[in-house]
Amino acid sequence: MRRAVDLTLYLVTDRELSRGRPLEDVVLAAVRGGATLVQLREKHTGTRDFVALARALRARLEPLKIPLIINDRVDVALASGAAGVHIGQRDMAYPDARRLMGPGAIIGLSVETPEQAAEAARLDVDYLGVSPVFSTPTKTDTTTEWGIEGLANLARVSPHPLVAIGGINATNARAVAAAGAAGIAVVSAICAAVDPEAAARELRVLFGK
Amino acid sequence: MRRAVDLTLYLVTDRELSRGRPLEDVVLAAVRGGATLVQLREKHTGTRDFVALARALRARLEPLKIPLIINDRVDVALASGAAGVHIGQRDMAYPDARRLMGPGAIIGLSVETPEQAAEAARLDVDYLGVSPVFSTPTKTDTTTEWGIEGLANLARVSPHPLVAIGGINATNARAVAAAGAAGIAVVSAICAAVDPEAAARELRVLFGK
Repeated sequence: MRRAVDLTLYLVTDRELSRGRPLEDVVLAAVRGGATLVQLREKHTGTRDFVALARALRARLEPLKIPLIINDRVDVALASGAAGVHIGQRDMAYPDARRLMGPGAIIGLSVETPEQAAEAARLDVDYLGVSPVFSTPTKTDTTTEWGIEGLANLARVSPHPLVAIGGINATNARAVAAAGAAGIAVVSAICAAVDPEAAARELRVLFGK
Repeated sequence: MRRAVDLTLYLVTDRELSRGRPLEDVVLAAVRGGATLVQLREKHTGTRDFVALARALRARLEPLKIPLIINDRVDVALASGAAGVHIGQRDMAYPDARRLMGPGAIIGLSVETPEQAAEAARLDVDYLGVSPVFSTPTKTDTTTEWGIEGLANLARVSPHPLVAIGGINATNARAVAAAGAAGIAVVSAICAAVDPEAAARELRVLFGK
């Protein structure tokens, strides 16, 4: 089953990087600039607040037809009615997440090595997060970077659309597109931008979709 | 709806306090000694490992008819098929947890103040965790202790059975029982004991049920 999802410009939230601005403001600005998908990522928030944040974001994004994806937490996704979850290799195993979320949910999986990517090829995931394409200070638990060549090699063989994650910004978005990514996931290049809307718009133009 | 559950001796796991012994060994020893319920509490474990731990424990406890309760994480409870969840005031809101877990699940809620207890009286929870009855180093995010008198006052008015949590050990189990608790939740008095089975047995005798 293929769930329709536009992966072109995938905003991953980071409240600490957002210059003290309300999360919703940054997210809505990014969407005005062309973000097609939003992942709510909270690393140090209690479950109750996480659900409340997810619900508030979903209420703003649903009228705009922008899917809300929750990082790691299937419970938060289910409670808030989010469109899906993004899981890493230490998060819930994909078959469990799919069983709990149901066949209509969008589920993406991060792959950090060619071995993990080969394993993921057998799964009915909606996309792979290729992580990190470039090393970045916002992800400290990852290892070797894929680089443009690694991304291109994977794009040639992967049955799944690829979202490039890690260090993506205006200087490399074009090269990432040329390597065959279906989309780019962006954290600081939008969240930390003085003008998140303009930053999103520029990234979309550079990515060329 | 009242779900049948024996709250008498409620083990809450703590791997850091378990003297390096495998979690399952400590839990099974406690059950041999008379623990009637087990809560798996993991504060720093990735979701995948948390689910794996929960599944392994459930496989050992189910044949013994000992319910496994998961701390906070509804996703882990659902993925592992645990009997229920225990939620605190910063975890998922009770109505959300009940909706996701279903009517047959055991759901307990910690109350830290008389105000929270009064609010909880309106909820269809299976028990209240009265937390902390005594101050304890294992719970640093709680405030004033209830004390024996606070516990007794709540027992007189609560429509729900009460589980006393926090600093319960052989020196106070009898007084906690006399105050009207349906059960005692124990962390270090069992997990850190040289002989968890003997510690559990002694607590049951002292609690007098």
